[in-house]
Amino acid sequence: MKRIAIDMDEVMADFIPKQLKIYNRDYNENLTIDDLKGKKLRELRPHIKEELRKYFLDPTFFRDLEVMKDSQEVIKELSKSYEIFITTAAMEVPASFTAKYEWLKEHFGFLNDMNFVFCGDKSIIHADYLIDDNARHFNRFMGQGILFTAPHNINVTGYVRVNNWQDVRKYFLG
Amino acid sequence: MKRIAIDMDEVMADFIPKQLKIYNRDYNENLTIDDLKGKKLRELRPHIKEELRKYFLDPTFFRDLEVMKDSQEVIKELSKSYEIFITTAAMEVPASFTAKYEWLKEHFGFLNDMNFVFCGDKSIIHADYLIDDNARHFNRFMGQGILFTAPHNINVTGYVRVNNWQDVRKYFLG
Repeated sequence: MKRIAIDMDEVMADFIPKQLKIYNRDYNENLTIDDLKGKKLRELRPHIKEELRKYFLDPTFFRDLEVMKDSQEVIKELSKSYEIFITTAAMEVPASFTAKYEWLKEHFGFLNDMNFVFCGDKSIIHADYLIDDNARHFNRFMGQGILFTAPHNINVTGYVRVNNWQDVRKYFLG
Repeated sequence: MKRIAIDMDEVMADFIPKQLKIYNRDYNENLTIDDLKGKKLRELRPHIKEELRKYFLDPTFFRDLEVMKDSQEVIKELSKSYEIFITTAAMEVPASFTAKYEWLKEHFGFLNDMNFVFCGDKSIIHADYLIDDNARHFNRFMGQGILFTAPHNINVTGYVRVNNWQDVRKYFLG
């Protein structure tokens, strides 16, 4: 059985709406997803990069993210024909460990938690495919990288790309 | 550069002395490491297996384990010639995430935390070697398994075995 590794933030978990909501509230702005096309918020507002990072130090930040549209149904379907592992760069935000684990158990309870992986450098992942919104993880990845479209990566080229979970379904299940 | 994945409990962290100390205190017994030869505590006292598991639900249990003799020096030495990843089955004890992370930062601060991996099923690990006290992790592991001697595994045969960190040094650095 071939194995698919799947990233969490901006792939399974809809990270941007919450980040924008909190940012707009605290900085009295009205940024939209369109403003984030081609870059991350920390690249758009580099002078407060460190302050933006502090949001993630709140252990609950990752607990109530919305589930990405269709991800539950498609991953459930994929899990009949593929081994599914969830591989998130949680080491970048150690405060997120528990929230990420609980979020997965709540929304993807049909997956085996022995297949959850909290890592940093994803070259450690032994899988045939990696679905991720950060192309840098594909550089040393052994298998096929699949770039999941997020605002920040829309100008990135040179990778297999899926725009949403229906695209993922088509790619793997035809 | 070849890559070595290293387990934590009973390989880097000396788990048994603390487990025995707490058990003996709470159950008014005098078990020693000799009693654990060939089995884990939960196999020696199967009728209280669930109660024993509860010790690990204390988020601090893994925080103050002793560092295994010579592990710091040898891992530091190995890290000059090999990529080192720490791969622990933390998903079996989600309450341990923070303690395990902090323990690694305290005692192995010279390692990059992007190379820490909290997982369950270790077949997800892409490495050339895996040093682990649980031989079951070698079954689907892609590389060479190296069994680190622990009381529970002394009767296990069929694997490359190292008895301590000086043996690890010899295996990799001759």
